[in-house]
Amino acid sequence: MKKILIQLDSDESSSVFDAITAYDAGVDHILQYGNIIPDHVRDLVFGAMFTRGEDDLKNSAVFIGGSNVTTGETILKAVTESFFGPVSVSVMLDSNGCNTTAVAAVRKILSVGSVKGKKIVILAGTGPVGMRAAGLLALEGADVLLTSRGLEKSEIARATVEKRFKTNISAAKVSSIEETEDILKDAYAVLCAGAAGITLLPESIWSGHPTLRVLADANAVPPLGIENTKTHWAGKELDGKIVFGAIGIGGLKMKIHRKCVAKLFTQNDLILDAEEINDIAKEIKD
Amino acid sequence: MKKILIQLDSDESSSVFDAITAYDAGVDHILQYGNIIPDHVRDLVFGAMFTRGEDDLKNSAVFIGGSNVTTGETILKAVTESFFGPVSVSVMLDSNGCNTTAVAAVRKILSVGSVKGKKIVILAGTGPVGMRAAGLLALEGADVLLTSRGLEKSEIARATVEKRFKTNISAAKVSSIEETEDILKDAYAVLCAGAAGITLLPESIWSGHPTLRVLADANAVPPLGIENTKTHWAGKELDGKIVFGAIGIGGLKMKIHRKCVAKLFTQNDLILDAEEINDIAKEIKD
Amino acid sequence: MKKILIQLDSDESSSVFDAITAYDAGVDHILQYGNIIPDHVRDLVFGAMFTRGEDDLKNSAVFIGGSNVTTGETILKAVTESFFGPVSVSVMLDSNGCNTTAVAAVRKILSVGSVKGKKIVILAGTGPVGMRAAGLLALEGADVLLTSRGLEKSEIARATVEKRFKTNISAAKVSSIEETEDILKDAYAVLCAGAAGITLLPESIWSGHPTLRVLADANAVPPLGIENTKTHWAGKELDGKIVFGAIGIGGLKMKIHRKCVAKLFTQNDLILDAEEINDIAKEIKD
Repeated sequence: MKKILIQLDSDESSSVFDAITAYDAGVDHILQYGNIIPDHVRDLVFGAMFTRGEDDLKNSAVFIGGSNVTTGETILKAVTESFFGPVSVSVMLDSNGCNTTAVAAVRKILSVGSVKGKKIVILAGTGPVGMRAAGLLALEGADVLLTSRGLEKSEIARATVEKRFKTNISAAKVSSIEETEDILKDAYAVLCAGAAGITLLPESIWSGHPTLRVLADANAVPPLGIENTKTHWAGKELDGKIVFGAIGIGGLKMKIHRKCVAKLFTQNDLILDAEEINDIAKEIKD
Repeated sequence: MKKILIQLDSDESSSVFDAITAYDAGVDHILQYGNIIPDHVRDLVFGAMFTRGEDDLKNSAVFIGGSNVTTGETILKAVTESFFGPVSVSVMLDSNGCNTTAVAAVRKILSVGSVKGKKIVILAGTGPVGMRAAGLLALEGADVLLTSRGLEKSEIARATVEKRFKTNISAAKVSSIEETEDILKDAYAVLCAGAAGITLLPESIWSGHPTLRVLADANAVPPLGIENTKTHWAGKELDGKIVFGAIGIGGLKMKIHRKCVAKLFTQNDLILDAEEINDIAKEIKD
Repeated sequence: MKKILIQLDSDESSSVFDAITAYDAGVDHILQYGNIIPDHVRDLVFGAMFTRGEDDLKNSAVFIGGSNVTTGETILKAVTESFFGPVSVSVMLDSNGCNTTAVAAVRKILSVGSVKGKKIVILAGTGPVGMRAAGLLALEGADVLLTSRGLEKSEIARATVEKRFKTNISAAKVSSIEETEDILKDAYAVLCAGAAGITLLPESIWSGHPTLRVLADANAVPPLGIENTKTHWAGKELDGKIVFGAIGIGGLKMKIHRKCVAKLFTQNDLILDAEEINDIAKEIKD
């Protein structure tokens, strides 16, 4: 029986990236749907639920993508609310690559050593990647501090992460080099999760930093988030610091993405969001 | 040569149900088109007609779906009008599952025995499933009576069925329990073809009915069309009556749907509407 | 690794013709995108560029179609501008079949003999097929004269062809039978590239013409471009003239189209427009 993936995308043109990755993960056929809003979801998911017998339902699955993560989360809710008891299909949320990117960054940071009790700063962490990484690192026992240029924005993100991941983190407003330097005092690791093409961490701060051990950057577009690093660095040691650039993280992200899509077709009741994707990523030898 | 199905759907997002069923029927690739209006049809059908040699045209076919059956019928007309003599591809109409559902219900009723000269009532029969079942049962020799809450609506449906199937049926207005009881006098079978979630036949009428032998219900959403029955009943005997619920009919519907899609690829000039789908269904061992 | 073609189509419903032809050329999966405007292109092409390693990029490719050739050319520009150095995928432009049709007509004309120094008239040549055929024939050494009913239109087409193909051609206004007769004086070949259903060359002109040796017609819809010929003529000799009708050209067009799509998947840096498609067509035994 053919493995069929239903790609629900909130953008007008559904993602080529997600489709090619799914085919490379072993999917036989993709049904691509763009411009998806939550109202469309039930009928499409019913089409997956009622075409195959219960034993065969694991061969149909749903992937949620698109650039808007909040819409993706609403679509995920609409998908799971369509299920009737055991009549369900597996579903994965990765709008804008948020889960696979955040998990890959977290796995890279953890590859250096335990983060238990250590201070980790997520610079510009109010976006989907930053918030997911913050929650996952807090669950690993780190003292996570998430920053934003706006105090209110950082507080909203903190509350959202704490509610979503049932854990505690800190938040702070950081909008200058001085504030960046202050906030990184005693930090063990830093993750730059800001917009593409914006430097968040000047070399003057990180190069001689007494406690910083791990630096990770999710921004692949120059100027990079961490000044004077390279996107392809995948654990490069420099001044006693281990540095991961966006492409250095990206290779693992692709492996995670493919493995999760493949996993969807092993049973009919998986819901793959940040935590589940993180668990699957632990099995990957990088 | 790959079997390619062109799915023309009048809804914005083309049906997942129809696509998965087509893949399960052995189609190699589906080209999905949503939001189809008759004006779009000719260029798309030309693309099927002029890409392969006449001997290979049987490997391309068209499936018409979407929730609006009237639009589906107009699309079918536009498809067949695009053909030039022998340069054609096979096409199947099953908007909203109307043909496969109606045929499955009819086959279930006939599985109990001949309907020749027997009175069959289609309750709330003015929708696509009811009208198609009415026509097919009349062609089998039954005395079909189609009902609606509105007299005019029932008359329009009667005229449409008679013109479409070149046969005669009766029609009546039924809008109360008393009228339902009256209309079922001397009836051999009843098919509930109304909207989801509306009871049309109270248990008080059917349970002790002196002549009713077969009860079929196309409504899968509680409350069911026939009170105190189960959707999964597939010929259950109760008080001397044989009962078919919507899911009991649905299994056969899926077999019919798949067999018809597979049949499309055996020649390049099939036009599968109610009668042809009924003929194909006769070959299925259920 | 599966061969995946990204079909970018400027029309609302992406072409069935192009999709079936691509599957027949050996593509494993097509991702179809309709309603494409240049602004959409970058993200979609990035999805092709960043999902597979450099050695595997030849398994992803882009096809540009749709009825509007000018939009197609703008989409091609947006595709190639998305590439970063060696990180690219192969791409083919064939909006409205313009390249494959023009190349097939040119190959047919050349199959009769060299055109070097010979006068070739492209009647109603301001459309995409006419302009591409004009440029390609000029590159083969022919003295090409392109006509239009409007003087200004013919001059614009001439300038466009000269700039695009870096070669010289002539242009003239032709809007009557007398002007057609005049312009064909001393001509060796004529290609009718006008709109469907319009006769451009009356039999009275071509049948007894003293120098005309090759006649080709791109119009498949009666009345044909060349009066009293047949669309399926594929090199029929008549009064010492070799005649190619639109279907006679179309068989070769299909071979060229399929071979070019197959070629896309042999390396990751092909850009297949008129000249490259013409070069590939030379390898085809017709």
